[in-house]
Amino acid sequence: MRRNLKLTLIFDGSAYHGWQSQKNALAVCDMVTSAIVRLTGEEDIKLYGCSRTDAGVHALMYVASFRTDCAIPSERFPYALNFLLPPDIRATGCEDVPDDFHAQYSCVGKEYIYRMHCLNYNNPFYRDRVYHCKYGDADVELMNDAAKRFIGRHDFSAFMAQGSKVTSTVRTIKYFNVARRTDIIEFTVCADGFLYNMVRILVGTLLDVSRGRITLDDIDSIIESHDRSRAGNTVPSCGLYLNREDYVRDTAPRALSSQVDI
Amino acid sequence: MRRNLKLTLIFDGSAYHGWQSQKNALAVCDMVTSAIVRLTGEEDIKLYGCSRTDAGVHALMYVASFRTDCAIPSERFPYALNFLLPPDIRATGCEDVPDDFHAQYSCVGKEYIYRMHCLNYNNPFYRDRVYHCKYGDADVELMNDAAKRFIGRHDFSAFMAQGSKVTSTVRTIKYFNVARRTDIIEFTVCADGFLYNMVRILVGTLLDVSRGRITLDDIDSIIESHDRSRAGNTVPSCGLYLNREDYVRDTAPRALSSQVDI
Repeated sequence: MRRNLKLTLIFDGSAYHGWQSQKNALAVCDMVTSAIVRLTGEEDIKLYGCSRTDAGVHALMYVASFRTDCAIPSERFPYALNFLLPPDIRATGCEDVPDDFHAQYSCVGKEYIYRMHCLNYNNPFYRDRVYHCKYGDADVELMNDAAKRFIGRHDFSAFMAQGSKVTSTVRTIKYFNVARRTDIIEFTVCADGFLYNMVRILVGTLLDVSRGRITLDDIDSIIESHDRSRAGNTVPSCGLYLNREDYVRDTAPRALSSQVDI
Repeated sequence: MRRNLKLTLIFDGSAYHGWQSQKNALAVCDMVTSAIVRLTGEEDIKLYGCSRTDAGVHALMYVASFRTDCAIPSERFPYALNFLLPPDIRATGCEDVPDDFHAQYSCVGKEYIYRMHCLNYNNPFYRDRVYHCKYGDADVELMNDAAKRFIGRHDFSAFMAQGSKVTSTVRTIKYFNVARRTDIIEFTVCADGFLYNMVRILVGTLLDVSRGRITLDDIDSIIESHDRSRAGNTVPSCGLYLNREDYVRDTAPRALSSQVDI
């Protein structure tokens, strides 16, 4: 039986059209797959990612899995792969996992962080990494209160970009916090899964709350309306980071992943 | 009499051969000067910077000064200049200052920060911004103890790159701290001035202390030796940030600048 390997990555998504391989565009998945093919000499590598990500979205910890017959010890994989990967993608860990592990289907939770700043100039060190909100400062306390209204199991179809096909639009948000960290405002949200553009629309909706366009009490009715037009705008992808994925084994639940801080 | 303006900048130095204008290389000074020339319509703009910086060195707060006859209110300058500057250089402030103010000659103190990490992979978000030290973890407490030995007024010629011409190699280090901040080690050093490559050689010397090549007690004798070969290597420029400059008015001493944190 082929080995099943779990690979963890960190990547700056600025140069890529998301994780998922697609025609006429460079994807993170393509870069990692070809590095694994070169390293193992196996042409038929099929790499599964924990999540599609949009163009420009980053990952501080991204889990992928693939099967291989190669004999390289798992702990040597990241070191060897990093010679074959571009510098904006790094392998940070690798381990042999049970045969039924699948980066996407075994994932039971994900945490995203969205970063924005409201400086009156775009700090060069934040370019492509922190969304520059040009509408003046935001009310962090109010947005944090509003974020709590999303917690729980809801039909989030009002917070899904159109054109996406999913069997269910019900998701469970476990926590959603907004906090200031030096001059950056950080939105941290964890759920069992996210709809297409959901994090970016949730953040856009909180910004509407900060600007007084939406009240705290509107949030429940926007959720219940299932009406995308009542939620806020989709904020830019450059501020979005996939920060953690949680996996639980069938019989012995435990979190395999730990938070990567930057 | 022409107005005298003090301009503060932040820049990512990765793409530039330092502040100082030079033949056949792109310098930060050139970009800022040509933006001011375009904005004011004055061809004879002479821009003075607080410091030469090496290629690849960054500034979180850089002070420059220039004279102009243009009538633009100083508080509008940064906004207008930022349309004419590349995105890796931003003007953050501007004010009218007394006629005798000079960005270089009026400066009485500078603070530099040096950032490094010892991860076993080069974090993509640290590329060109944090030095990746590949020799395993460093002893922060020991380096912080060693840093204290440099405090005070000394002849720092052992910590100066060769080929530089200065009238005096005596400088006074006011403080020098080494601390861990998440997975980054930060060296913060403030002096009345620095010799060519001095900060990078000081950090390289502290790394030698961490590795046991130099003892705490060696430091005094290395300073006294005036022998560059006894100090440590010059660490790479990408981890170096000019963080603050202090100015004092002749008759009413006060710090004009405040710390910019990132």
